[in-house]
Amino acid sequence: MSLTVVGSIAYDTVRTPFGERQRMLGGAATHFALAASFFDEVRPVGPVGDDFTDEDLAILATRGTSTDDVERVAGGKTFFWEGEYGWDLNSRETIDTQLNVFETFQPKLSAAARACDVLFLANIQPQLQLDVLEACDGPRFTAMDSMNLWIDIARDDLVKVIERVDCVILNDAELRQLTEKPNLVSAAREVLKWGPSVVVAKQGEYGAALVTGESFFALPAYPLETVVDPTGAGDTFAGGFVGWLAKNAEDTPSDAALRQAMAYGTALASYNVEEFGMERVTRLTLDEVHDRVEAIRDLTQFTVEVR
Amino acid sequence: MSLTVVGSIAYDTVRTPFGERQRMLGGAATHFALAASFFDEVRPVGPVGDDFTDEDLAILATRGTSTDDVERVAGGKTFFWEGEYGWDLNSRETIDTQLNVFETFQPKLSAAARACDVLFLANIQPQLQLDVLEACDGPRFTAMDSMNLWIDIARDDLVKVIERVDCVILNDAELRQLTEKPNLVSAAREVLKWGPSVVVAKQGEYGAALVTGESFFALPAYPLETVVDPTGAGDTFAGGFVGWLAKNAEDTPSDAALRQAMAYGTALASYNVEEFGMERVTRLTLDEVHDRVEAIRDLTQFTVEVR
Repeated sequence: MSLTVVGSIAYDTVRTPFGERQRMLGGAATHFALAASFFDEVRPVGPVGDDFTDEDLAILATRGTSTDDVERVAGGKTFFWEGEYGWDLNSRETIDTQLNVFETFQPKLSAAARACDVLFLANIQPQLQLDVLEACDGPRFTAMDSMNLWIDIARDDLVKVIERVDCVILNDAELRQLTEKPNLVSAAREVLKWGPSVVVAKQGEYGAALVTGESFFALPAYPLETVVDPTGAGDTFAGGFVGWLAKNAEDTPSDAALRQAMAYGTALASYNVEEFGMERVTRLTLDEVHDRVEAIRDLTQFTVEVR
Repeated sequence: MSLTVVGSIAYDTVRTPFGERQRMLGGAATHFALAASFFDEVRPVGPVGDDFTDEDLAILATRGTSTDDVERVAGGKTFFWEGEYGWDLNSRETIDTQLNVFETFQPKLSAAARACDVLFLANIQPQLQLDVLEACDGPRFTAMDSMNLWIDIARDDLVKVIERVDCVILNDAELRQLTEKPNLVSAAREVLKWGPSVVVAKQGEYGAALVTGESFFALPAYPLETVVDPTGAGDTFAGGFVGWLAKNAEDTPSDAALRQAMAYGTALASYNVEEFGMERVTRLTLDEVHDRVEAIRDLTQFTVEVR
């Protein structure tokens, strides 16, 4: 069993009210991989430059993740992002984006990467997502992320990707923008009509909602008194969600499995934001993940005999 | 057993993407009363003008609510608010506010209103909330709402009110502003330190969170494909929440009762926004409320054997 993820491996400089970290390991594929590595053998596909260190490659390899498909571009520099968060961490400003080796990235998947059981297409250009779908041998479950930029400038290609995957994971504002439907439930149902069987709406500090043809499910985020760095929370959520399904679900995940996956995604995202970058999730244990899933269950359950 | 609510009884003109209603019945005390009337004998205290119609008084009296403490101000006009909602209903612009009889409102509580078991102080000037607390004979449970205006211009009085009530129900942004704490959990815990035993953070379309000394609980809003008019959703939530506790809880509500109350508040708020103004909640039945509580339970529950 293996899980291929295609996306960015990056260096981030991040300022939050809790401090600053310069050029620390980040990127969507990295956050996804560290979360999913609790559940499956993960294979990130993405480019890095000469500046990428062996120490950071070792972090990416946490819990057995294969780094064989990390492409080292000679003479290139690793994708760089710099951002600053506002006082309540709900707003952020991008200070600098240097695509570097990501600008000309053409995914080259090894035989092992193509043979994956589960595929996650992190936020990259939709045409590249289509190329990866073509290249793979036929994973039993495919999921994807995207962003407002691609809705603006490459919507047709993006819709083609959506038509071919099982699961779409987007922010609620992106789902609204994509479908031009102001109501989240209507927006999610519209995306389901295009082909996917599962839509997850990420809602930032408020949690996430799951919409399928038969079911609606919503989970709040785990309540933390101290959130240090929200960067990568969405990709960590996706790693927990898709990783759990890779290990615990059949071709068509049951409603129960999808709800459990939501809880694991939520638990992993909550750990991710407790410290900067990959710091917390790198040394996280599976027992801690289970503990938080139980805590999330406790804070959402109620009993009522209504009549 | 009786529940006194002090707050605005108003006429609203509302425009949403679904249409417009002119001078329809509204106001915080009205929305609260129509929801709470499922669970207790409710007694709204608030002023109206000569323009207030018998038809609207009859709506306020739905399900046995006493209108004896509705003060008719001779020569006065009823509080008027006009607003317009944006395309996704999450933003709204106030077009006009005419305080009218509300400008000089001094709550005069009848003996029956003072003898209430449960008291809800809707969003009015904090000094008036203090006057009402003084006037009452000693309700076993007191809850309150407020708004950003009072945090800006009457914070000291507002804090005095908070110190004397059992339960604070505010929007999450108001809790942050009030405590100057960007983190919602920290903000709620700060308010608990001031005196109350229960803090509810309303989160609009995302639902609501409950924080006590021992427990955290969160519920998503009920997912509706069509939201017609969000006006009064927060007051309707408060009416369901406080009303349920008035009927089903002891002096110090248990964690289980508080969670149930959150579900009833959420259910009632979801009906309120399905149509304009009081239209839906006026003709709502208790069976429909119970049905939605069960639906909310179904969409938040998951089981997981974690080890």
